[in-house]
Amino acid sequence: MSGQLSDEDYKKKMQKRKEIQEQRLANMKQEKGLIIVHTGNGKGKTTAGLGMVMRSLGHGYQVAIVQFIKGAWEPAEKAVLEQWSEQLEFYAMGEGFTWETQDRERDTMMAQKAWAKAKEFILNPEYKLTFLDEINIALKMDYLDVNEVIGVLEQKPADSHVILTGRGAKPELVEKADLVTEMKLIKHPFKEQGIKAQPGIEF
Amino acid sequence: MSGQLSDEDYKKKMQKRKEIQEQRLANMKQEKGLIIVHTGNGKGKTTAGLGMVMRSLGHGYQVAIVQFIKGAWEPAEKAVLEQWSEQLEFYAMGEGFTWETQDRERDTMMAQKAWAKAKEFILNPEYKLTFLDEINIALKMDYLDVNEVIGVLEQKPADSHVILTGRGAKPELVEKADLVTEMKLIKHPFKEQGIKAQPGIEF
Repeated sequence: MSGQLSDEDYKKKMQKRKEIQEQRLANMKQEKGLIIVHTGNGKGKTTAGLGMVMRSLGHGYQVAIVQFIKGAWEPAEKAVLEQWSEQLEFYAMGEGFTWETQDRERDTMMAQKAWAKAKEFILNPEYKLTFLDEINIALKMDYLDVNEVIGVLEQKPADSHVILTGRGAKPELVEKADLVTEMKLIKHPFKEQGIKAQPGIEF
Repeated sequence: MSGQLSDEDYKKKMQKRKEIQEQRLANMKQEKGLIIVHTGNGKGKTTAGLGMVMRSLGHGYQVAIVQFIKGAWEPAEKAVLEQWSEQLEFYAMGEGFTWETQDRERDTMMAQKAWAKAKEFILNPEYKLTFLDEINIALKMDYLDVNEVIGVLEQKPADSHVILTGRGAKPELVEKADLVTEMKLIKHPFKEQGIKAQPGIEF
């Protein structure tokens, strides 16, 4: 498209874009702690959360990660994150995927325990970011009550952020959130090419 | 839903899921360097790439990042990434957003320069992961030729991965890729609440 514009028109178009962008930025004055949801059946929900954790660590903020459903993170994440042990609190539910246990009471108990920890971090103003990885699965499985979670999010300090990830986010949570992104699967080599999980990509 | 199952049915359901999962994993034997695309108008394209970079660094791999269009990354990313300077090569196009310059020839030249660097990394088997941040914008603006990019991707070492991000991925690139995720905007506080970019979230 831009290939068909004269140099003069290109310059005008870019000038206009610049003005629109500057106007947009001028209109945005408010700072606010955000409730962020990554959902959908695609990849990148956890890794995008991890990227935000990195940014926050780079700014010198205190960060908490609570991992629901999945077991402890893999050695690669740990190796990277342990370098920030002074800024970072990490709590992982002790067990593997939920279908490994087949005991609803135990699954519920562990999710509730992780949630109790999450609540402490969310309400503690020292933590600028709390990342609740795969909490949407715990909500979907009814291990946690969405109204209880929303009630705590409503009490969070005004300038701190919470990221909630996992497919199938509850509509009530999407309604409450400030920033919602659906990671949508377009193509996946697992399904289409029979390729296994690989280090650096999946873990 | 699961709340209505008896404990016995819950156990059966989870058992079945476990079997399906194990079968799926058993079918996936192949390892393969992937061409990964993050596109769409939502957030998380760059941060998900950053999360994969972290994982690869945690595994001890050599990683290269080439940043197209946007200027140098923000201090927060740099503070975090500079701790891996032995494993990580970083090349950033020297200028800000494209509409800052308004000179197509200069924009094209800089994108081509970044691409020349990217090509070196992609073809060098030492780099297990090359992350081409916002390259889709350079392709959309016709600063780079998509067939040239695909031609180089076809020559990459078999076990190395390339991530290409940015909205509006070209159909030819989506066709060539192994793993494509669309980050879809559901809700964004910039647009809906006039909230400005904040440290830890946007940069």
